[in-house]
Amino acid sequence: MIRVNENYLKLRASYLFSDIARRVADYAAKNPDKEIIRLGIGDVTCPLPPACISAFHKAVGEMGSKETFRGYGPEQGYEFLREAIARSDFQARGVRIEPDEIFVSDGAKCDTGNFQELFSREIAVAVPDPVYPVYVDTNVMAGRSGENCGNRYRGLIYLECTEENGFVPDVPKERADLIYLCFPNNPTGATAAKQKLAEWVRYAHENRSLILFDAAYESFIRDDGLAHSIFEIEGASEVAVEFRSFSKTAGFTGTRCAFTVIPKKCNAFTESGEPVPLRELWLRRQTTKFNGVSYPVQRAAEAVYSEEGRRQVRELGDYYLKNARLIKERLGGIGFPCFGGENAPYIWVKGGKDSWAFFDELLERAGVVCTPGAGFGSCGEGYIRLSAFNTHENVERALDRIEKAFK
Amino acid sequence: MIRVNENYLKLRASYLFSDIARRVADYAAKNPDKEIIRLGIGDVTCPLPPACISAFHKAVGEMGSKETFRGYGPEQGYEFLREAIARSDFQARGVRIEPDEIFVSDGAKCDTGNFQELFSREIAVAVPDPVYPVYVDTNVMAGRSGENCGNRYRGLIYLECTEENGFVPDVPKERADLIYLCFPNNPTGATAAKQKLAEWVRYAHENRSLILFDAAYESFIRDDGLAHSIFEIEGASEVAVEFRSFSKTAGFTGTRCAFTVIPKKCNAFTESGEPVPLRELWLRRQTTKFNGVSYPVQRAAEAVYSEEGRRQVRELGDYYLKNARLIKERLGGIGFPCFGGENAPYIWVKGGKDSWAFFDELLERAGVVCTPGAGFGSCGEGYIRLSAFNTHENVERALDRIEKAFK
Repeated sequence: MIRVNENYLKLRASYLFSDIARRVADYAAKNPDKEIIRLGIGDVTCPLPPACISAFHKAVGEMGSKETFRGYGPEQGYEFLREAIARSDFQARGVRIEPDEIFVSDGAKCDTGNFQELFSREIAVAVPDPVYPVYVDTNVMAGRSGENCGNRYRGLIYLECTEENGFVPDVPKERADLIYLCFPNNPTGATAAKQKLAEWVRYAHENRSLILFDAAYESFIRDDGLAHSIFEIEGASEVAVEFRSFSKTAGFTGTRCAFTVIPKKCNAFTESGEPVPLRELWLRRQTTKFNGVSYPVQRAAEAVYSEEGRRQVRELGDYYLKNARLIKERLGGIGFPCFGGENAPYIWVKGGKDSWAFFDELLERAGVVCTPGAGFGSCGEGYIRLSAFNTHENVERALDRIEKAFK
Repeated sequence: MIRVNENYLKLRASYLFSDIARRVADYAAKNPDKEIIRLGIGDVTCPLPPACISAFHKAVGEMGSKETFRGYGPEQGYEFLREAIARSDFQARGVRIEPDEIFVSDGAKCDTGNFQELFSREIAVAVPDPVYPVYVDTNVMAGRSGENCGNRYRGLIYLECTEENGFVPDVPKERADLIYLCFPNNPTGATAAKQKLAEWVRYAHENRSLILFDAAYESFIRDDGLAHSIFEIEGASEVAVEFRSFSKTAGFTGTRCAFTVIPKKCNAFTESGEPVPLRELWLRRQTTKFNGVSYPVQRAAEAVYSEEGRRQVRELGDYYLKNARLIKERLGGIGFPCFGGENAPYIWVKGGKDSWAFFDELLERAGVVCTPGAGFGSCGEGYIRLSAFNTHENVERALDRIEKAFK
């Protein structure tokens, strides 16, 4: 009999976005004349930078001619892209990362989701709360948790991110073998000081743990004192893997390109303590289960590192950050404590009440859609997430309405 | 301590293609004046069909403008593509498959590799021999095998494909819960008669097994009596999942698009025998670990189903099949028994000796690269695989040289 992986049955159905959609549809049905402004989603709205479009077209053209056509590419990504990444994202900042420590993929969701496959089922996993649900669900699927109770799975270690700790979790008292961290953070928009990251690196060395560092929002950092990469922290290259993406950086959410950085020095261990280089394990995983990213997409991503690409991407980030600043200032001005939104496209707003009640109120009174914080975990209760991914015009109008309704 | 998934350490390092590369490099160094013709690889050589290129460009253009830009798409693929697939690949042949039973992905390698995640570690897995290594390796990684002994893993059921059974395996005597089948076959080029497929479907019903049917080479079928889809067989939609790809069909090996078909009626079971619809499990898997295929790539794939796209794809298949026919005729003419190559782009050649010895001889005496059959499993010993993915000119020249050397 073909037996199912019963760990899948432990998964709590994710009703978050369908619940939101249902409430928005109800509201729209009752208020057919009212326009709704969506500040809930974490998806970009501006088109791809012109430099990417032009490189994309050129590469599509190559695929149409016998002389320049490309079939299977290297599973870990073309060297031209891995070299551009190593040079611009790391070496230019004084971080020693080589092209063969970079693995190009079709998304940070896939990479953060698949990476846990490399590890034993017996390891202790620590996840932030609130959290990007992929970290949790993929470990539940792999059998690393017990049943779901309330908003949490038994057997996982939840790292609480609260106003008290600035939404940057402290190292736990217990032993965690695999630790997920994300800065700038989704959903809170928080950033972690270098000193705080150094504490985590020290913890990982002491416990022979591994940090999976999700830096998908790195390109929104404007504060010079913040680390763009975990590898700026001394000793990190032995105990951390970093995930990056072109999704939010350059508007690739529908184009699909990302990458994972695994330093050669980074090991996992056999039961008897023998080190096994993670880079080789991931290479084996990718060559077995993945066939590389579309060639024209890799050329489009490469263009992000050209002179004009760099300028356009910077402008793109600035555009969304202007929205974030505006949201933070004006909501703060009417008395809502706001966090994040300075080096991140998300603003974490303390509503002073139940997340869903605040969601409903914002929709009813202002016609604005947000994401209830409780959807990201227990510690999200009392908060909502607003996203800066929209036009200036829509953000201004949403804020006008919110001010009018709540002032 | 971050402990490794020790199942990865059971994997036999795949030296097949690196061994080939090394021997070819040695030959090239010793014979700098001799040109090498490669009939080893399973990668296409003709450019993308013009219909696909034009749709691809158009969609890239859309990504560059605010009005037409697309961010995240549905994880299971855009409806325009799933509808085109359901209509043209299935309904037009009288097979009842709906768009919501189709999941678009970036490759059949990913899908055939990832699908086993849905099942318990305790199931018995049957794989053909010779085999596409992905089926085997992904089950080893998931802990469904013992150690490797010789050319086989303990605990897996090997379905022998030999000259005697026409390279189409018989149903096993023992119980297999998960069965991998691939027709037209890689590497043997064999096809399975409908009656033979019906035996497998009956076996799956009797044992509550699941068939994973890899139809990546479906577009090379020219014989009207052959099934293009496992779902042409009565009762298959309760016990089978089918994998298809645009890679070989339309030259998408470097562009990346494929799809998986999971009928709503198809179930796996809990330990206590409760049915769980596989379609829902895979949807949960894909929405958690995958973020959809690049939008422009999906538009390029859709163009395969336009009137001109269909014609161009047919011509593409005919081009490679002409090579296959030529290889088969002329190698047969000098006394090598040849199999496959009629509804498939691969010719399975009985060399009458050790695979690697035949590989070396072909390289030394004719400057032609093949793939040794033993690289695909024990039953591949004594055979080599020749691929039709090359230009007519190269194939003709390769055959001239082989005839001269071996006649």
